[in-house]
Amino acid sequence: MAEMRKGERTREHILKTTRSILVAQGFHNTTINDIIRATGVKKGNLYYHFASKEEIGIAVLQDASREFLRFLEDSFQGPTACAKVINSCQAIFQEQQKNNFVGGCLFGNAALEMSDSNRRFAAVIQDVFSQWCNKLAGALMQAGESGCLAASLPPHLLAKAIVATMEGGIMMARVSKDPADLADCLAVIKSLISG
Amino acid sequence: MAEMRKGERTREHILKTTRSILVAQGFHNTTINDIIRATGVKKGNLYYHFASKEEIGIAVLQDASREFLRFLEDSFQGPTACAKVINSCQAIFQEQQKNNFVGGCLFGNAALEMSDSNRRFAAVIQDVFSQWCNKLAGALMQAGESGCLAASLPPHLLAKAIVATMEGGIMMARVSKDPADLADCLAVIKSLISG
Repeated sequence: MAEMRKGERTREHILKTTRSILVAQGFHNTTINDIIRATGVKKGNLYYHFASKEEIGIAVLQDASREFLRFLEDSFQGPTACAKVINSCQAIFQEQQKNNFVGGCLFGNAALEMSDSNRRFAAVIQDVFSQWCNKLAGALMQAGESGCLAASLPPHLLAKAIVATMEGGIMMARVSKDPADLADCLAVIKSLISG
Repeated sequence: MAEMRKGERTREHILKTTRSILVAQGFHNTTINDIIRATGVKKGNLYYHFASKEEIGIAVLQDASREFLRFLEDSFQGPTACAKVINSCQAIFQEQQKNNFVGGCLFGNAALEMSDSNRRFAAVIQDVFSQWCNKLAGALMQAGESGCLAASLPPHLLAKAIVATMEGGIMMARVSKDPADLADCLAVIKSLISG
């Protein structure tokens, strides 16, 4: 039992450490030796937990995905559905600002690096975007029903554009290291929602 | 003179061939040998034109940037400033669709791969995004003056959100290989502009 917990801790340590390597340098540019060096886990032990670099990559994305969806859940706060959507986008902005716009969005990065060549990676990322869209669309539908929504667009369409604008804004702020690039996107989202 | 023209043709051939490799597999994952193999240009000749892989990468981005800005210029067509903006976004959608949403946007890809680690790459990409924003903002300002603009947001802010939405939409469509992801973003942009 204690042994199992130790194994889980090792797995968790590998996932979190590899995530920060992947954010910094991408999947292709990361070797198994980089992961061994950074985690301090022996090769045999690493392969006990994961069959290949691809399996580690998929598991890192799945782990980050669960974490992001929990973060998202917590970020939908406020007295109205509109406030929930805006506060959620604001929380993502703050996360990016905390990191000085270095690293960007792991899912966006992996999307651009991996989705043409590896459909398993693409499937995990698509699922994150899709759950994020659904969460937004649910709140936007409520906002529409309560009459607080400025834009007269179908919720699922508006939700998709919000995800795209956030991802594109994160990309632009990452290039310029200027918070205004993402802040401007946020201002347009706010205006779309609450006029 | 003929020799100079041949040199220019070789340089052009290296740039265009390397661009398609970079779109497919990124900068870090591309070696000088990949470029030699794909172009058929001898190593000595390659280094005659470019001092390093970094110099090739920068030159590819600059060449693609000039081409994209010409494409953008041509895409601003239509009877009104609003129509020009919408048709330009539509032209980008069609380019992506022509490639079946494979490869995505070279600048977006390079932004996510290179902008934290190499400020020279970041500067070229930032310049593309900034010129694209300015071009859109100019048309949106005209649209505002002529009273055809639906959104009541400052042109530079709306322009930035349009670039972010297009880049994010290209990313999402690249993951899903579903044209609807970018088409939905386009629909929101259209609604922002012409109501």
